[in-house]
Amino acid sequence: MSYFTGLTEEELGLFVDLYELTMARAYRAEGMTERALFTLHFRKLPPGRNFVLACGQHYGALLASALHFPREQVDRLAQLDMFEDDFLEWLSAFRFSGDIRVMPEGTPVFPHEPLLEVDAPVAEGQLLETLLMNYVNTETVLASKAARMVVAADGRPVVDFGMRRMHGYDAALRGVRAYRTAGLAATSNVLGSFQHGLAASGTMAHSFIQAHRDEMEAFRTYARLYPGTTLLVDTYDTLGGVDKVIRLVRDEGLKVNAIRLDSGDLAQLARDARQKLDEAGLADIRIVVSSGLDEWSIRDMVEAGAPVDGFGVGTKLGVSEDAPAMDFAYKLTEYAGEPRLKNSPGKKLLPGRKQVWRYRDRDGRYRYDEIGRDREEREGEALLATVVRDGEPEGPGPDCEASRERVRRALNDMPERLLDLDETDQPYEVRISDQLENLYQEALAAVTPDKGGS
Amino acid sequence: MSYFTGLTEEELGLFVDLYELTMARAYRAEGMTERALFTLHFRKLPPGRNFVLACGQHYGALLASALHFPREQVDRLAQLDMFEDDFLEWLSAFRFSGDIRVMPEGTPVFPHEPLLEVDAPVAEGQLLETLLMNYVNTETVLASKAARMVVAADGRPVVDFGMRRMHGYDAALRGVRAYRTAGLAATSNVLGSFQHGLAASGTMAHSFIQAHRDEMEAFRTYARLYPGTTLLVDTYDTLGGVDKVIRLVRDEGLKVNAIRLDSGDLAQLARDARQKLDEAGLADIRIVVSSGLDEWSIRDMVEAGAPVDGFGVGTKLGVSEDAPAMDFAYKLTEYAGEPRLKNSPGKKLLPGRKQVWRYRDRDGRYRYDEIGRDREEREGEALLATVVRDGEPEGPGPDCEASRERVRRALNDMPERLLDLDETDQPYEVRISDQLENLYQEALAAVTPDKGGS
Repeated sequence: MSYFTGLTEEELGLFVDLYELTMARAYRAEGMTERALFTLHFRKLPPGRNFVLACGQHYGALLASALHFPREQVDRLAQLDMFEDDFLEWLSAFRFSGDIRVMPEGTPVFPHEPLLEVDAPVAEGQLLETLLMNYVNTETVLASKAARMVVAADGRPVVDFGMRRMHGYDAALRGVRAYRTAGLAATSNVLGSFQHGLAASGTMAHSFIQAHRDEMEAFRTYARLYPGTTLLVDTYDTLGGVDKVIRLVRDEGLKVNAIRLDSGDLAQLARDARQKLDEAGLADIRIVVSSGLDEWSIRDMVEAGAPVDGFGVGTKLGVSEDAPAMDFAYKLTEYAGEPRLKNSPGKKLLPGRKQVWRYRDRDGRYRYDEIGRDREEREGEALLATVVRDGEPEGPGPDCEASRERVRRALNDMPERLLDLDETDQPYEVRISDQLENLYQEALAAVTPDKGGS
Repeated sequence: MSYFTGLTEEELGLFVDLYELTMARAYRAEGMTERALFTLHFRKLPPGRNFVLACGQHYGALLASALHFPREQVDRLAQLDMFEDDFLEWLSAFRFSGDIRVMPEGTPVFPHEPLLEVDAPVAEGQLLETLLMNYVNTETVLASKAARMVVAADGRPVVDFGMRRMHGYDAALRGVRAYRTAGLAATSNVLGSFQHGLAASGTMAHSFIQAHRDEMEAFRTYARLYPGTTLLVDTYDTLGGVDKVIRLVRDEGLKVNAIRLDSGDLAQLARDARQKLDEAGLADIRIVVSSGLDEWSIRDMVEAGAPVDGFGVGTKLGVSEDAPAMDFAYKLTEYAGEPRLKNSPGKKLLPGRKQVWRYRDRDGRYRYDEIGRDREEREGEALLATVVRDGEPEGPGPDCEASRERVRRALNDMPERLLDLDETDQPYEVRISDQLENLYQEALAAVTPDKGGS
């Protein structure tokens, strides 16, 4: 008997909230087959954040556009005793026929901006909701946290060590894609490395030293087997461990590229270790640190000038500890060509099919964004592009290396204040076009408490 | 081209941190084939918590014991250019040969108590680390958060609506298992419901009402198709929505079991809606609420006596917002029959093979736990039992309904103060036996800064 559980590509259609299915059936039963527009966006940045990186929407769109319900899965749904045969047959034949527009992977995104819009017969758009939201939330949350670490490390490599405390294997694996996009240097996650093309990297655990009892012997074995490895020096006494590394390299001619510090006052230990290594003529041995790091502790070490050459980050990245979820919503904003809103006091919801334009100054720096109606003519860079048309993929698929380069440039082109780890008092400006504002007012006027009182 | 990514059972061996593989190879290269003991535990409860529910360790143990490396996966590892053929052959033939002891799924667990111990040749035990930690962290974090919601709801059903904001599909699916164990009533997650046997449940989304424009028509359609359904009444005007439900049921004879409130002052709206329903003679229509709920907002509504019959919880459960990870560690604590520790000032690590005994008073209430050496004779209930022996599953596999019943009884048998949502000033007592304390002191004395300085 296997205890393995998970999701196969055949089961993807069942990765859905029950109400998407019951609503889809109801639309069909009523003959409501008009097209609807669904907008994926968020209303607020996580506390202390000035931007997030939109990730997962292009991959999610391509995946969702291929959604189907094999017979075996439809048979499982039949067991629920909620759906008549006619609807189950429709599911069996289901192929997405609509359009999806998305921002490119790794685009910095701000409140109210659509990351993705689905334009499809309403039942079809409804069925994609859960899958798209789960995909985008997971990768956006992880990439956005990773970008903060990259910014804080100021050019020093940041490596993912977090898979053991991430939420399940899908997050751990797709996290590697998000980390690659965000600019991390490597990951300890072997399968993630294979799947998403970020370099695999690893050092050694305390258990290896403890099993040997003789730390010197453990170091010697490892350096012989893995020339140029990183040795973990804090199992018993950190600076004593550094002395042993020096002896190994100087007296025995073994090649060691780096030492890792994983406990104690990392900045001070790094200084002391650096001094020992330098005095021994081993200026080329690098120092990497780990141990509950987040963007603030990384920044503090960098700002203090601690001689740290790289950072291994785990839990606080892997669960995006301070902001493990965002308030993404997937909202119906148009039906049968008419703008539609719900009554949400204090929450602005933008109706209809939209576009986001990004404006830059002469040096390429971001000036402001504008959200408008899709058909407006604008000078700025239009961020939403069609990647699924009439149910078929359109244009080149996402390329993770290109996404990474997009992020690298974006972090260079964004106003400096947005890169601050704390919340700026001058948030990035996102304008609403006059045409869209007019449509919003019009749609809002149609949302009256006595409506639908037939 | 498929954009589906994930993990197959064949790839499970590669769901590993790179250093587990490099260490395993090094142990082999040195002929270090003695048995080691690895202990999975945590040192601190998440802030504000008085217990957590140990979950995932039995499933994880059975899964890990079946780990193997099919040829295709070994070929991928060969590409890394780090491993010689001899080690790759060993991986190809790898079958876990050790023992694993675990606490039953759903056991309340406290700091320093082993949830799981692996006793195996050191390379084998090392290879299981990442998989076991990821499994246990994910399910323990989610079940523990869910248990708080169940406690706060004080007998009212709590339903999972969170899959859209959970971290990937594996967490969303295995989350359903954790939620079932913790006592949730149902889930919106269709595949999760099929996989893990928790009832599927769902209402309707605002998009359904918006697409109809006429709220009454949307309600009518849904209630006709799904007699006894729950109608979402806050799209335009909450109490106006309630009036429509009343007309539907009284004038048109449709059957509606509940209304859902998803915005505004939920307690007050529940009171007003209750009054309207009662005055209309519809005392049997229940009121369920959702909208960013957590255990505190649930408790507040319950304590205020708000007429709420059920709670739908999403994001704050799905990412365990206030405690998305725990500080689980998988530590080598014995090698070749000798206790082994690392130098961890201020962090107590208990050496050797251990057992946890739970002591109760005459009424069955928990009194205290004791951690001791495995072979000590004790009166209390021993919590760790062998589930894998010589690499093979032993005893009955986990049964989710039995785990759920275990949790139900545990929440009844725990001291009241531990069920408080805030941190008690009298944490549950966990004793260390004299024999274990002696072993600890002995092992600690062996950890001296100058050790291993050959």
